[in-house]
Amino acid sequence: MGGSVGRVLMMLGIFTSDPDKVSVDSITLFVTLLCACIVIGHLLEENRWMNESISALFIGLGTGVVILLATKGASSRILEFDEELFFIYLLPPIIFNAGFQVKKKQFFRNFMTIMLFGAVGTGISFFIISFGAKEFFETFDMGYFELRDFLAIGAIFSATDSVCTLQVLNQDETPLLYSLVFGEGVVNDATSVVLFNAIQKFDLSDVNSRVVLKFIGNFFSLFITSTLLGVSMGLLSAYIIKKLYFGRHSTDREVALMILMAYLSYIMAELFDLSGILTVFLCGIVMSHYTWYNVTERSRITTKHAFATLSFISETFIFLYVGMDALDIEKWKLVSSSLGKSVGASALLLALVLVGRAAFIFPLSILSNFFKKAQSDKLTFKQQVTVWWAGLMRGAVSMALAYNQFAKSGHTKQPGNATMITCTITVVLSSTVVFGLLTKHLVRLLLLPSDHNRAMVSSEPSSPNSTTLPLLGYGQESEDVEMGRTVPRPPSLLMLLSTPTHTVHYYWRKFDNAFMRPVFGGRGFAEFVLGSPKEGSIH
Amino acid sequence: MGGSVGRVLMMLGIFTSDPDKVSVDSITLFVTLLCACIVIGHLLEENRWMNESISALFIGLGTGVVILLATKGASSRILEFDEELFFIYLLPPIIFNAGFQVKKKQFFRNFMTIMLFGAVGTGISFFIISFGAKEFFETFDMGYFELRDFLAIGAIFSATDSVCTLQVLNQDETPLLYSLVFGEGVVNDATSVVLFNAIQKFDLSDVNSRVVLKFIGNFFSLFITSTLLGVSMGLLSAYIIKKLYFGRHSTDREVALMILMAYLSYIMAELFDLSGILTVFLCGIVMSHYTWYNVTERSRITTKHAFATLSFISETFIFLYVGMDALDIEKWKLVSSSLGKSVGASALLLALVLVGRAAFIFPLSILSNFFKKAQSDKLTFKQQVTVWWAGLMRGAVSMALAYNQFAKSGHTKQPGNATMITCTITVVLSSTVVFGLLTKHLVRLLLLPSDHNRAMVSSEPSSPNSTTLPLLGYGQESEDVEMGRTVPRPPSLLMLLSTPTHTVHYYWRKFDNAFMRPVFGGRGFAEFVLGSPKEGSIH
Repeated sequence: MGGSVGRVLMMLGIFTSDPDKVSVDSITLFVTLLCACIVIGHLLEENRWMNESISALFIGLGTGVVILLATKGASSRILEFDEELFFIYLLPPIIFNAGFQVKKKQFFRNFMTIMLFGAVGTGISFFIISFGAKEFFETFDMGYFELRDFLAIGAIFSATDSVCTLQVLNQDETPLLYSLVFGEGVVNDATSVVLFNAIQKFDLSDVNSRVVLKFIGNFFSLFITSTLLGVSMGLLSAYIIKKLYFGRHSTDREVALMILMAYLSYIMAELFDLSGILTVFLCGIVMSHYTWYNVTERSRITTKHAFATLSFISETFIFLYVGMDALDIEKWKLVSSSLGKSVGASALLLALVLVGRAAFIFPLSILSNFFKKAQSDKLTFKQQVTVWWAGLMRGAVSMALAYNQFAKSGHTKQPGNATMITCTITVVLSSTVVFGLLTKHLVRLLLLPSDHNRAMVSSEPSSPNSTTLPLLGYGQESEDVEMGRTVPRPPSLLMLLSTPTHTVHYYWRKFDNAFMRPVFGGRGFAEFVLGSPKEGSIH
Repeated sequence: MGGSVGRVLMMLGIFTSDPDKVSVDSITLFVTLLCACIVIGHLLEENRWMNESISALFIGLGTGVVILLATKGASSRILEFDEELFFIYLLPPIIFNAGFQVKKKQFFRNFMTIMLFGAVGTGISFFIISFGAKEFFETFDMGYFELRDFLAIGAIFSATDSVCTLQVLNQDETPLLYSLVFGEGVVNDATSVVLFNAIQKFDLSDVNSRVVLKFIGNFFSLFITSTLLGVSMGLLSAYIIKKLYFGRHSTDREVALMILMAYLSYIMAELFDLSGILTVFLCGIVMSHYTWYNVTERSRITTKHAFATLSFISETFIFLYVGMDALDIEKWKLVSSSLGKSVGASALLLALVLVGRAAFIFPLSILSNFFKKAQSDKLTFKQQVTVWWAGLMRGAVSMALAYNQFAKSGHTKQPGNATMITCTITVVLSSTVVFGLLTKHLVRLLLLPSDHNRAMVSSEPSSPNSTTLPLLGYGQESEDVEMGRTVPRPPSLLMLLSTPTHTVHYYWRKFDNAFMRPVFGGRGFAEFVLGSPKEGSIH
């Protein structure tokens, strides 16, 4: 397909024919498909059964078929899944934007539940999937796997996909569930890093209480250092922009600095072996709380939309990518002799994912409810079912981890490893399509009509995200929406007063107003809200 | 420096140790340096002797020294110049943004002069540098070079660097010179592609009139196809966004589509062997004339600033990159035995660049003045000197071409080739620093004080670019500035009437209003200027 054009390029001599490097023809194909995804996603938006990610997945699959036919089944190597591209370039903007646009109050109100789900829950799910897989794979004779491999399978399939969650749960419709499932996905990343490290470092033949304690200690130190890194990068950006008064000269410089420092927080976390996802998420939260108020009005509008756009492009890219890679013919050829086994293993893994998640969502919800005083803060059974269901999707993170574990340096040649890759692809595709398609309906069925009031207790008026952005005001509207719960509604204020979370929040606000905001800026403490002098002239 | 951290990452197993791939530590270093460049550039802004690109260049050089010392002079390979990164990722945003923010009227008014400089002028400069180098290199015994190599040297050193031009000439202070030098750089790219093709395809031992005619034919077909591609991608984006009414659902989707389609125009041009720079520049012009008026107000602010920010980051990146790469120890070691020769060759090349540019700027300016009726449109001698001087810088484009020609697959092992690379680096560094630093002063000395009125004839009121952007209005201000010359100033209107350019412009406006704008949108024909219904609610 791109052969003849590739030859022309080589003749031109500007682009090398090095197979490791991306080539112009595959970039062209990809960008064209991205445009197609945006247009088609736009046209299908009114359709209740589709969403952007699933249409991108299908477009990717369709293109994969076309390429296979065009090359007469030779290969689809040009579009191989690349973990580096995924972890270094595509994931950070998505997670940062999620932190930047998240409803902070909702998020911190459920902090304990999120931690329970993300840390303890992932652990439970990990053990169930690992040992379930070990038990059944030996029965089915799936090829040789070490204990390490089974533990890796557990880590891979207990990773809730934050990117998918963003696609199926709506922050405005179901803020509580969104913050629970998405927050769990973020904390989960920290757990995964610790698990992966533990699998590779610890002596697994002899698990005793000391190892478990060390493991828990590792988790907390990782969690705390990642948090500190993210928060300090966010605060640093706020401080620099506030002190140096960037907007005086150029809006572009402010925006560039915000983008670069956010990315720096992620890449530094990866460099120091921390959880990049957790770090960049917290950096996003801090930036939206402080830095965003220190920049000019134009920069505010630009950053809000530019971050959202980058995140949107990355999400579409990932789903397109996963869809295209699913048809990598080499791997399927290797497992074709044992197609039955592969299907069986995929079904088994899907079942384990379902059971593993159920095994922690329901008990931990009961535990979490026990500690909550206000009735409205407790998770009803219907909500628990939705949280369970909405977190079942496995996505690009699972793919990337699976490639990392089972496809290193042509390792797929072994049938067992190839089977694991195709299983992961099957689980990712089927869970994304099935759970992804049904979640919207489940939310509508279980929560919105009958349970409307309960679901809305912790919800803002259903407004699109973009209306929270001030175009004319001083950032007032955005903050109003965010503060909506504490100030103007006496009943919910009373309810909040009865909970300890509110007390923490109260002291935090005091500290924030007395110390943090005067130093780092933020609403009411930013110096040039009206726009820089240069730009102010057009008002 | 990054060794120990790299090992940690390999242990984590997420990032491979493949030397071809970028590693996390070099990304971290680079992003940190980019942030430093922005902050330092901001602090130095009031300094008349510095500009952002030169401070980035110095920071890059400084870091190169630190790395060399830290690795005890072992290597700086981690930061090697990569043409692919440059041509595929860094260059397109810069050129697109230049097209998007360019003052269209000024640009098209000088279209013929720009074409003369960019096409004929580059040809003249190419021949002078090629044959000058051939003549002198044989005298100095610089190692073995083919005729092809000398022609490549001509092509490399006759390329005016558009990126540098953006840094030293100010569109608001000297719009005429900016449009001439920058426009020349854009057309020059098309010429370079044709020259490079010609060098590799034609039989150079037998140059006759048929070959020259074929060459000229090639140039025009390349120029026209690149133009058509850029214009049609721009119009397509305008049509899609106008018809499908994207802003109704999401601003992010509009912005994403604009970014992706702009990039698509560039990468398609590269794919089809056309001039990507010319294509993406024209796509930027068309998008700012039609597409930009079809999107919501938030999207307008976002795109203006997001494109400028991307361009700003890329520019800083390039200068930092060139600065760091300049100290690649391997190449310098190779030429250390013949350092005198290398210095001599660099000086010779610089002299040839000076002469080659003078040889076409002055004659062609006289030719161009001859066809212009209005006195104000003619280039004075002082302006000619400034155009000559401001276009002397050689930058990253020259570096990339030189690497492509002389550093392919370890080819630098040959002393002659290594010398050419180090010569290019020397010429790039010295021309950027010397000409870059002095251009501002030259402009101030030659044009602004004494020649103030003349320089301002073709100038808008000196406003920063960002004020042309409407925050509250309907895009009125931006257009007012752009139209400033035709409508409210009778003297300059009269002058314009006497020139043929105006007639072309008059018929173009008629056609634009009668046919183009109703179909593709644009000022006055966009359907949702007030913002989409959803977003309009907050007004």
